[in-house]
Amino acid sequence: MLTHQAAEHIVDTYMRCLSEGDLEGIMALYADDATVEDPVGSGVLAGKAAIREFYGHTVAMDITAERTGAVRCAANEMVFPFLVHARTADMAITYEIIDHFVVDGEGRVVSMRAFWSEANIRH
Amino acid sequence: MLTHQAAEHIVDTYMRCLSEGDLEGIMALYADDATVEDPVGSGVLAGKAAIREFYGHTVAMDITAERTGAVRCAANEMVFPFLVHARTADMAITYEIIDHFVVDGEGRVVSMRAFWSEANIRH
Repeated sequence: MLTHQAAEHIVDTYMRCLSEGDLEGIMALYADDATVEDPVGSGVLAGKAAIREFYGHTVAMDITAERTGAVRCAANEMVFPFLVHARTADMAITYEIIDHFVVDGEGRVVSMRAFWSEANIRH
Repeated sequence: MLTHQAAEHIVDTYMRCLSEGDLEGIMALYADDATVEDPVGSGVLAGKAAIREFYGHTVAMDITAERTGAVRCAANEMVFPFLVHARTADMAITYEIIDHFVVDGEGRVVSMRAFWSEANIRH
């Protein structure tokens, strides 16, 4: 059973690794057979090679991730609201996201689904 | 395809009906073959009779539901953070919740999953 403290630690590690561009730190959170769907409806990436490629693009950007509310953890699942602030040379964009993680018995993420759409982007 | 406006309308109707104790308004949001899991991990209620019984207990309480962040809608799914303030004669309790709704082609909820645990209850 996933404890609230363990869930919060996973989420806050994820926020920190996204903000620091720590690709290895992000990958360490995932199980080998994990899947990622970001955003929901865009197709599912399966396995660490595909997930590494996805986050490689993410950490190449100048972003900061900021949790904006409590982690809600139930059974072996958790959801949490957060913002991603992305900066380019000429603009700043903020994404309002809620992620859904399912973890295995060892506390590694086996499924990540990110909920957001164009309506959640602020310029 | 579910629009952000349609998703927000469903969520805000749900918040209002919970706060007003409007059982019929809540039931009108659900498809006949809907399922409800509240909290996640507690077992799945299937069909409107079971869902009506569940919300019958909910609306019998003195509660107010308050959305605390943007609805994140993607494909035919949505998630949103909210608080439920519950009052009894001698205490006030606040639950921090994130709900996950899946809707059908007619915009009716076919799956509701509520994410929260004891760690999300404030006395």
